[in-house]
Amino acid sequence: MNIYILLFDDFRTLDVFGPVDVFGEVEEFTLHYCSVAEGLIYSSHHVPIMTTAMPSILPPDSIIFIPGGMGTRSLVHDQLFITFLTQIIPQASYCLTVCTGSALVAKTGLLEGKVVTSNKNAWSWVTSINSRVHWQHHARWCVDGRFYTSSGVSAGIDMALGFVSDLYGQERAVKIANLMEYVWNSEPDNDPFCKAL
Amino acid sequence: MNIYILLFDDFRTLDVFGPVDVFGEVEEFTLHYCSVAEGLIYSSHHVPIMTTAMPSILPPDSIIFIPGGMGTRSLVHDQLFITFLTQIIPQASYCLTVCTGSALVAKTGLLEGKVVTSNKNAWSWVTSINSRVHWQHHARWCVDGRFYTSSGVSAGIDMALGFVSDLYGQERAVKIANLMEYVWNSEPDNDPFCKAL
Repeated sequence: MNIYILLFDDFRTLDVFGPVDVFGEVEEFTLHYCSVAEGLIYSSHHVPIMTTAMPSILPPDSIIFIPGGMGTRSLVHDQLFITFLTQIIPQASYCLTVCTGSALVAKTGLLEGKVVTSNKNAWSWVTSINSRVHWQHHARWCVDGRFYTSSGVSAGIDMALGFVSDLYGQERAVKIANLMEYVWNSEPDNDPFCKAL
Repeated sequence: MNIYILLFDDFRTLDVFGPVDVFGEVEEFTLHYCSVAEGLIYSSHHVPIMTTAMPSILPPDSIIFIPGGMGTRSLVHDQLFITFLTQIIPQASYCLTVCTGSALVAKTGLLEGKVVTSNKNAWSWVTSINSRVHWQHHARWCVDGRFYTSSGVSAGIDMALGFVSDLYGQERAVKIANLMEYVWNSEPDNDPFCKAL
């Protein structure tokens, strides 16, 4: 399966590279670091990533991954970007978001009626984007059909391991977590940060 | 303070971008993504990072950060690289390593007689590099003078938070961990993965 990681300026660094460290250990996955315009993209911590152009037609068995970060605050008002998401997400077998990445997908309308979560530190802003989404405050991550949405930043690692577990079994996920020396929170309904609201 | 993040091909992705997500939230730090030859560097998961040239003379109050990853296995035999490390590390106020990054520094001899740790999945290889280093198998991370060394991959996040705590107080570190929605293991002597040996 191809995972298209859609980057934009001021994405949150760990939103992307936590899950990348998980997905990169799955031999069935090929990772693509993309942006709409291709070229250098800078994370929230000024990490310069060289990206290729995000394809507008996805091959079968594709996965789209959308991070959060301060860049989402302006991007949610970028009609061309939101239209692009609206056209491309339905082509993917799965769409995964971390942190405020779910705000971008919520703006498309594609999450309406679905069980979704996001960063607890940005909760009031994210949930204001679309009130017809069933926002879950207690969740570390949510699964609803093709959509996987996680809480903030490091929650993306837990969700990524959960995604691998759902696709290939828990043993694979545990093996990767051990390789990363990461204490996996494997319970999607257990968010230690949901009280931060 | 300037943090020089020394990248090389096949560094482990999260070794770098976990700590970057911590350091990037500290306004006193300026982060530099460097390599010996400058230009594009590819992580273990093929993330293309655009780097600037690592300076051979460091300004005062500099920090060097050295990740691990499979790239260290060949780099430890690269005499020019090891000589460069030997010359540059003594100029830094602090030298931080994650995972098998400590193997590279051990090779220089600068860690001899010091309390140091590394990835538990690569323990026998790393410790074979230099037997005069006091390798600590039980540690999540170690501090000895200017040297901070962490265990594997995600342990770098715990050490980075510990480094911020040592420099600016625990409250700053906890605030950043909460922002990252990360459950910080703040005990350097508590490594849940040390039994993996």
